[in-house]
Amino acid sequence: MPAELDIVARFFERVGLAADPALHRNIRLGIGDDCAIVHVPRGKELAISMDVLVEGVHFPTGAPADGVAQRALAANLSDLAAMGASPLCFTLGLTLPAPDEAWLECFSRGLARSAERYGCPLAGGNLARGPLQIAIQVQGLVPRGKALLRSGARPGHEIWVSGEPGRAGLALEWLQGRCPGLDTAQEQELHEAFYDPTPRLALAEALRGIASAAQDISDGLLIDLSRLAARSGVKASVEIAAIPLSGLLTRLRGSSDVFRLAMTAGDDYELLFTAPKSRHRAVLAAADQAGTRVSCIGQVAKGEGVDVLDLSGRPLAFEAAGFEHFR
Amino acid sequence: MPAELDIVARFFERVGLAADPALHRNIRLGIGDDCAIVHVPRGKELAISMDVLVEGVHFPTGAPADGVAQRALAANLSDLAAMGASPLCFTLGLTLPAPDEAWLECFSRGLARSAERYGCPLAGGNLARGPLQIAIQVQGLVPRGKALLRSGARPGHEIWVSGEPGRAGLALEWLQGRCPGLDTAQEQELHEAFYDPTPRLALAEALRGIASAAQDISDGLLIDLSRLAARSGVKASVEIAAIPLSGLLTRLRGSSDVFRLAMTAGDDYELLFTAPKSRHRAVLAAADQAGTRVSCIGQVAKGEGVDVLDLSGRPLAFEAAGFEHFR
Repeated sequence: MPAELDIVARFFERVGLAADPALHRNIRLGIGDDCAIVHVPRGKELAISMDVLVEGVHFPTGAPADGVAQRALAANLSDLAAMGASPLCFTLGLTLPAPDEAWLECFSRGLARSAERYGCPLAGGNLARGPLQIAIQVQGLVPRGKALLRSGARPGHEIWVSGEPGRAGLALEWLQGRCPGLDTAQEQELHEAFYDPTPRLALAEALRGIASAAQDISDGLLIDLSRLAARSGVKASVEIAAIPLSGLLTRLRGSSDVFRLAMTAGDDYELLFTAPKSRHRAVLAAADQAGTRVSCIGQVAKGEGVDVLDLSGRPLAFEAAGFEHFR
Repeated sequence: MPAELDIVARFFERVGLAADPALHRNIRLGIGDDCAIVHVPRGKELAISMDVLVEGVHFPTGAPADGVAQRALAANLSDLAAMGASPLCFTLGLTLPAPDEAWLECFSRGLARSAERYGCPLAGGNLARGPLQIAIQVQGLVPRGKALLRSGARPGHEIWVSGEPGRAGLALEWLQGRCPGLDTAQEQELHEAFYDPTPRLALAEALRGIASAAQDISDGLLIDLSRLAARSGVKASVEIAAIPLSGLLTRLRGSSDVFRLAMTAGDDYELLFTAPKSRHRAVLAAADQAGTRVSCIGQVAKGEGVDVLDLSGRPLAFEAAGFEHFR
């Protein structure tokens, strides 16, 4: 059974380092010392975010290890996207009950795949015995003073969302056996929605200087929008008919279920952002450049909270706004 | 029962911010957005390190929450010290089974105490339901190119250690009920050795430009020295008689036990470092300036591995070199 340092050397030392060398020139010292040493170029600030994924809470017990790795890194990279930051490197605190070599092989393969795809190599971390949990911290770079904050939404700005929220929520119900009878292509789409979500890094970079506020949807569109509104000191009005719906959702679910998933299910890691009305075309051009679908779903107004309006402009109510720990 | 964001606001939002404001002028954006934003001044590099502490593995089940917090932060700050870096801020990934308010109150009090003492405020993180684990990442600053690496030891250099290794190992045995009959002062000393270790930040800063290599002792003097030697491509020779012993160890344990603890017990977070012989007096002056005891315990030579020599120069053997996960 391999010891700690052997596991690091065998499974983790090269994660992300097959990527373009230019992407990790700012890592002055990687795995193997007490700290990693990172260089932050002039004119840039460092964006950092830590997320912990717990087996049985954030992903099902017995989930495929490569999917868990991809999901853990994507959840963190999505936080960089939400600031308009570009990936620099990540650190990993992995606790696992036993050094299962097949699991480690699969986990590190998924981790390396995502690290290379998004240009974010592993720079350091920690491995210990414990219940299966994955703590990841991402480091990113953003031009000084240009980070996209949650606090910049102003009355009159438009509210936008990327992609089609609700797919990961449906995927979770499928993983829990609550969505039977799918064909292989549908299963594949849901598997990817849950285990390989795409952090909206390219879109976020393109939106720098255009968007006025941003955050990612990790807990649900409604609850995350209420956080953005609170942080900006404004009210958000969303038109339910403007919410982008995935074909899979509408094929598999009735309309009330479709909107429940799109508005309150978490884990999609789509980007929720606002921009002045005058930048409407600039937003569409940025999305086009990034190859990402975006939809204008509402307006920022004076006041507080979030209104969701039906086709006749009447407010709709949802039972739960999204996922919260300890509620 | 408070929800996630209420817990953050109530217990964590101000951790470390009562410290000298000058110490956190480089935190451009703290808790409350998708990422924290950190400024790295010109001429500095960023040192980062993540450590995860697991209940029942790194600290006893039911351990005092303030002690757990102090220990978790100290373990991370010790990694900054081992690089000669100064604290900038930390992030926290806390998972706990239930939002026990008394526990959170005590935990955040201990965390704030250490954060202020060492000038390292909390800049962000993540709170989730799960088995009790504390993931901390520290960010520190070090002058460009001046980080103390493990790889700088050269034949002829002297080997030094700070403090009196073995006290935390004895404390662990006491916590496990294997060290009965102590008086209150002795219990207090062991409690502090385990739950409030002092990261050697002041010493490390004073040693910049003097020490040739450094790392902290987290798993045991012998195993950590063997890592430093391997990384430097040298052999380390330690004289057992030169190992500094705490009065408590020698009062409470027989001599073989004393050396076993000093050489192979972990968790002391003392600094292990090397320096050219010509800098012997400079090392002592740095230690004096930092108010930290240091002891010269041996020599670096050509070769590999670690020799521990008795009074007659004969090599000694130890059953285990130190703590390793999954061995």
